[in-house]
Formats: sequence, C-alpha cells, structure tokens
Amino acid sequence: MPVRLAEANVTIVGLGLMGGSLAAALSGAGLGARPACREVVGVARRQSTLAMASDLRFIQRGTSDLAEGVREADVVVLATPVRDILAKLETIGPLLKPGCLVMDVGSTKQAVCEAMARLPEGVQPLGGHPMCGKESSGLTMAEPDLYRGKVFVLAPLERTSEEALEMGRALALAVGGMPLVLDAVRHDRLVAAISHLPYLLAVALVQATESLAEEDDLVWRLAASGFRDTSRVAAGDITMMMDILTTNREAVLASLDRAQAQLDDLRRLVAEVDVDGLKAHLQRARNRRREMFR
Amino acid sequence: MPVRLAEANVTIVGLGLMGGSLAAALSGAGLGARPACREVVGVARRQSTLAMASDLRFIQRGTSDLAEGVREADVVVLATPVRDILAKLETIGPLLKPGCLVMDVGSTKQAVCEAMARLPEGVQPLGGHPMCGKESSGLTMAEPDLYRGKVFVLAPLERTSEEALEMGRALALAVGGMPLVLDAVRHDRLVAAISHLPYLLAVALVQATESLAEEDDLVWRLAASGFRDTSRVAAGDITMMMDILTTNREAVLASLDRAQAQLDDLRRLVAEVDVDGLKAHLQRARNRRREMFR
Repeated sequence: MPVRLAEANVTIVGLGLMGGSLAAALSGAGLGARPACREVVGVARRQSTLAMASDLRFIQRGTSDLAEGVREADVVVLATPVRDILAKLETIGPLLKPGCLVMDVGSTKQAVCEAMARLPEGVQPLGGHPMCGKESSGLTMAEPDLYRGKVFVLAPLERTSEEALEMGRALALAVGGMPLVLDAVRHDRLVAAISHLPYLLAVALVQATESLAEEDDLVWRLAASGFRDTSRVAAGDITMMMDILTTNREAVLASLDRAQAQLDDLRRLVAEVDVDGLKAHLQRARNRRREMFR
Repeated sequence: MPVRLAEANVTIVGLGLMGGSLAAALSGAGLGARPACREVVGVARRQSTLAMASDLRFIQRGTSDLAEGVREADVVVLATPVRDILAKLETIGPLLKPGCLVMDVGSTKQAVCEAMARLPEGVQPLGGHPMCGKESSGLTMAEPDLYRGKVFVLAPLERTSEEALEMGRALALAVGGMPLVLDAVRHDRLVAAISHLPYLLAVALVQATESLAEEDDLVWRLAASGFRDTSRVAAGDITMMMDILTTNREAVLASLDRAQAQLDDLRRLVAEVDVDGLKAHLQRARNRRREMFR
C-alpha cells in the first residue's frame, strides 16, 4: 500500500448511491477537481451501470469481474448492502495484493468487522460508515457531494495498522467527510437509535395509517408536511434495511424497547390528562430537537 | 353577511403563523394581487404584532380590542390555539353583527364545533382546518402562500346555512386552498392518525435517543438526515400541541394504540428473524409511502 492516497489505485465494489457517490467524489467528477487518487476502478454486476459510471466520469475503468477489479487495487471499498459485503469478505481475501486496505461503507459494523477479522494476514481491514444517504438508491441518485460535511465513521480492528487507518482517514477527508474513529459495537448501538429506530417508527406510522385507511380512506388526503417528513425514511431501500435489521438485531430491539417505553409514558400522560407532566415532557423533546438542529 | 367575499369585512383574531398567513393571502400581500375581500382587520394582543402586520400590509387595520375588531365584521376567523378559540367562542357571541360568519383554523374540530353550537342564533358557525403548518410559529414565519395547494377542511354544523358554507368555501379558495367538507368527529379521527400521531412518534424518538445519550452522548453526533426528518415535528409549538392532545384525547389514544400494535409486530418479526414476514411488512410500508408522495 502506498503511503499517500494520491498514489493509490482505489477499487469500489458496488456502484449504487453510496459507491457511485464515493467514486464521483474521489474522481473529482462534476467538481472540476483533480482526482484524489491514482485511479478509480468500479466493479458492478451490470454492464449498463459500468457504462453509465464511465460516461459520468465517476470511474476511470470498470469491470463486472470482482477478481479483475481488485487485483491491482491498493484500496478496495465494498459498497454493497451489508449481507453482500459479508459474502464478498469470505471470498475476496486470496484475490488481493499484500498490504491492500479493505474498507466498506456498510450500515452496520459489528458483523462486517468480524468478517474482516478473517481476511488473510497481509491484508489491512477497516470498517467504514459514512452517515449519509437518501431514500432513493442507485447510481442515478449518486452525487459527488453526498459525503460533504457528513460524519464518516471508521471502525479499525485490533490488527489494523496506523498507516491503514491514516489511509482510511485520508479517503474520508478526500470526499469531504468528517472522520470519526469508533468501535464497531458502539457504532452499531448508536446507529440503532439514530438511524434504524427512525426507520421502524416511520414504517409503523405508515402501517398504522394504512390500518385506519381500511376504515376511512380519506385519511391519506389529509396527509400534510408533518406526515411526509416523519414517514420519509419508510420509502427507503428494503434490501439495505433487511440487512441492517438482521445484522444489528440486538441493538435494534433495545432501541425499539426504549421508544416503546417513551410511547407508554406519553400514552399515560395523555390518557390521564396530566397537563403539567405532558407539557414538561413535550418541552424537553422540543428543546432537545431545537438544540440539535438549528 | 354579504353574498360575495369581495364585499365582506374579514376580521382575523390571532396573527401568528396561521392567522398572519391567512391575512397575507386575503390581502394579496407580496403576491401583487388584489385583496380578496373588502377589508382585513387583525386582532392581536401585542401592539408590536399589529404594527408588523400593518407594515407588511397583511392587514388594513389592527386592534388589540376583540370587541372593536369584530364589531363590523361579516366574517370572523379565530386563528389562535384551540383552547383559546374555545374561550373566545364563549364570549364573542354578543359582540357580533347578526348574520356574521364565525370560522376558525384550529387543529381539532369536535370541541370547537360544540362550542360554536352555543353561539347566538343569528350567527353562522363554520369549523375550519387548513392542513398546513410549519414547526416554527409566529407572524415572522407567516407567508401568503402557506395555504396554496393544501386541503382546507370545512366542518359545518347542522345549523350552518348553505350561504355560510359557500362563503367559507370562497375564503378557502381565495387563499389557494382546496376546500374539503368534513364532519368534525371524522376530521378529528383522521388528523389524530395523520398529524397528532407523527408528532408523538417524533417526541418518543427524541426522548428515546436522549435516554441513550445519558449513557453515550456521542449519539447526537451521528444524527443524519433520516433522524432530522423523522424528528422534525417534535420541535413544534407546545401550546398548540397541548391543546390538540387534550381536545382530541380519545382519537389520539386510538392512534397511539394502532402505532404500538404495529411496533409490537415489527419487534416480533425482528426478534424472531422472520425474514419473509419482515420483508413483506417493510415492502407494504414502502409501497404505500411511495404511492402517497411521489
């Protein structure tokens, strides 16, 4: 592995929203910027995806052959849903150059880092998770600015060298992200609260409304901006969410329990018309929300 | 009451986000449009609010004296939080011209329409609820386009004349809204699902995250756009929400029960790793959400 990102060959496996945007940012596509690395190679199953990524100048070279794509890579970034990352980590080891850095941008980190621990000795593993996304997926939604200003979690393993972590940090910075080194277990517990729980609440909201719609279908006509925003993430990618919920099950359940306890409290305050208690509760939430997002 | 809105004196009581925007739209302020009625009078407690509304040309005349403000009105629109509307409905009756139309833009309709039923015989009552809002309140957030393209619920009482309903419809159309005649009880049941439930879920999300933050305060640093949108309405106005939750208690509790049943289902599917069941559930929600908001 070269010391500097500028000299590294970077291969991105998976050219969806996350991988495509990463490729775009590294290539400087649409930003009028110089590439942040020597070459960006894209690996995708479909020729049409590779052709589009080339046309957009997101990648310098594309292939649908994983082995060919990673052979010369100094840095490989796996940018597919988590269960596909896990599968690729089982097979990719023997295909890599010694010293190659293997990263990912998957949504959960504990399962990924456990699989990374089984990579051949000469390879450097580093879990990654940029805290960004959209409810629409796919290369057509990709943009070089997706990572700009967003926290980019880096989850090193015990065996990860300081140089490999530095290369990961350089990559995160090169795409405009804010690197944050975090233990995989701690990451998963935090994103269960901040990302996976909002998704499940949004799904429950849509389904609760649907169950009322069976009695009175006018309900959807009254949906306004509050409903739209609160339910937005329920429109997200199912494969990605299934992988998240099955690889982060314990933390997700703990988050759900915390939310249900809060809903029980709210229900009691409303049912008992506890005006002072309810008001104090709503004020705490409002103040916290306003502090977080000004 | 004149037959046409263009000849009517309209008094708006309360110049916050809703009342201020209504005044702005009726006056044609900022739109370069002609006023939709003869005169827009504003009633507000604070002189500074009245001065600002006049400066913005949202109102032609302002007063902090309710009796003076409504004396010459053909249409009175109460645009304060619901419990304040209920209080004003108890006192406003003797102050009004015979035939005056009394509307409101409050968030719940059953309690309001019950109070409207006690207005003097000569007065025409009509419940109203435009399905729009922002999480920020106050006149400084008001805008003439707030109602544009939004459903404007009209809830007539048994005693409401056809002419009064027509005047309400004309007012809703004049501000760009889409009038929808709806029974008060039905309205309250529907908005409990589509508006009050999203609020409670957002509050529960913020509070659940806060309870994790007590163990690990890094959680807020990871909050991204999904969390921001799902929690947005938790930053809303407390007085308005308290009035909503106390005047629409039964329907709100029924909505909470529906959401909690959905969360129980989701929890079970995740806990049992029921991949097929979970996937089907998430797909239904995604498809519904995508149909509703394209």
